[in-house]
Amino acid sequence: MGPGPAAGDDIETLITTMARLPGLGPRSARRIVLHLIRKRAGQMAQLAALMSSVAETARECRTCGNITQSDLCPICQDPGRATGEICVVTEVADLWALERGRAFRGRYHVLGGTLSALDEIGPEDLRIPELVVRIADENVTEVILALAATVEGQTTAHYIAEALEPTGVAVTGLAQGVPVGGELDYLDDGTITAALRARRRL
Amino acid sequence: MGPGPAAGDDIETLITTMARLPGLGPRSARRIVLHLIRKRAGQMAQLAALMSSVAETARECRTCGNITQSDLCPICQDPGRATGEICVVTEVADLWALERGRAFRGRYHVLGGTLSALDEIGPEDLRIPELVVRIADENVTEVILALAATVEGQTTAHYIAEALEPTGVAVTGLAQGVPVGGELDYLDDGTITAALRARRRL
Repeated sequence: MGPGPAAGDDIETLITTMARLPGLGPRSARRIVLHLIRKRAGQMAQLAALMSSVAETARECRTCGNITQSDLCPICQDPGRATGEICVVTEVADLWALERGRAFRGRYHVLGGTLSALDEIGPEDLRIPELVVRIADENVTEVILALAATVEGQTTAHYIAEALEPTGVAVTGLAQGVPVGGELDYLDDGTITAALRARRRL
Repeated sequence: MGPGPAAGDDIETLITTMARLPGLGPRSARRIVLHLIRKRAGQMAQLAALMSSVAETARECRTCGNITQSDLCPICQDPGRATGEICVVTEVADLWALERGRAFRGRYHVLGGTLSALDEIGPEDLRIPELVVRIADENVTEVILALAATVEGQTTAHYIAEALEPTGVAVTGLAQGVPVGGELDYLDDGTITAALRARRRL
């Protein structure tokens, strides 16, 4: 797995540690470490300092569960973001993806996972009770469930929709259909069926 | 490129810095940083410390050019490695690849590149003068040129073979042929021709 007995101990440990990161392996880890060593004066020390700072300070936003370096994340701190709409996502990565699209100007709520009987993840393991509290506290009028179009995602969506029914808040979900740039020939049957059922008048 | 304005400053800088590493991009960098933040107590702080240590101490081995954390690399320090054979490689990554194969028990010499008229890399930019010095100093009897089977690699090999001719040392190169597990149908014509020309009696 390692570079062999050729380099120093820390260099080998660095490579084997990086090789275990998601999407990397021994080969790409070796390539990255060699690249960094060649530029060590600059980029590697900077990376080490950044990682150390983030490891020290990164935490969940007290309100929405986004990852942040302060008590509240920049979105929850932003007075320009509408408080009446909450977009519920599974993971922080989903929140970031929505932010890159710049289409949503409300606030978020990160569940931290989906319901799963197999993995014994129940409603109390996700941030669903906190969501119910926020709906009362923040005068929320709409909750958008931006969950994955998978069995687990949709099970979780239905559970939340039911849990929120007593609050009277409007609960919506993302539209399903043909992705932008998608060619029908390459789409799975489920997507085509969903797009056909949700067809709209032009 | 970044995660959007959603995370803290250091988190965003960490992601954009990692996204510039070879083989990574914005998406894989985000995935790695999120993974690290979730395990931050352990792995991220450890990675930061390792990087900081390596950034501080990594240097070229005084003798062979391998990357190491001391003055001499572990191979040059190892009294069990034969001093009579030097294997010349282009980059440290090649040295590590040969070490993983465990077939060579001599010492190495890292050139740090190949001759290239286009990039204005001449013999004096590589560690060729140091190689000539080592051949006299270390009683070397064979120099194995383990360079790439590319035009640049072979040009460099020929240059070194000529430069070493006055020393009387035996200069050899890696065999060319069918790679282990290689199917003829998938090989390029050059490799098939080389393998045919270098055919041997069974």
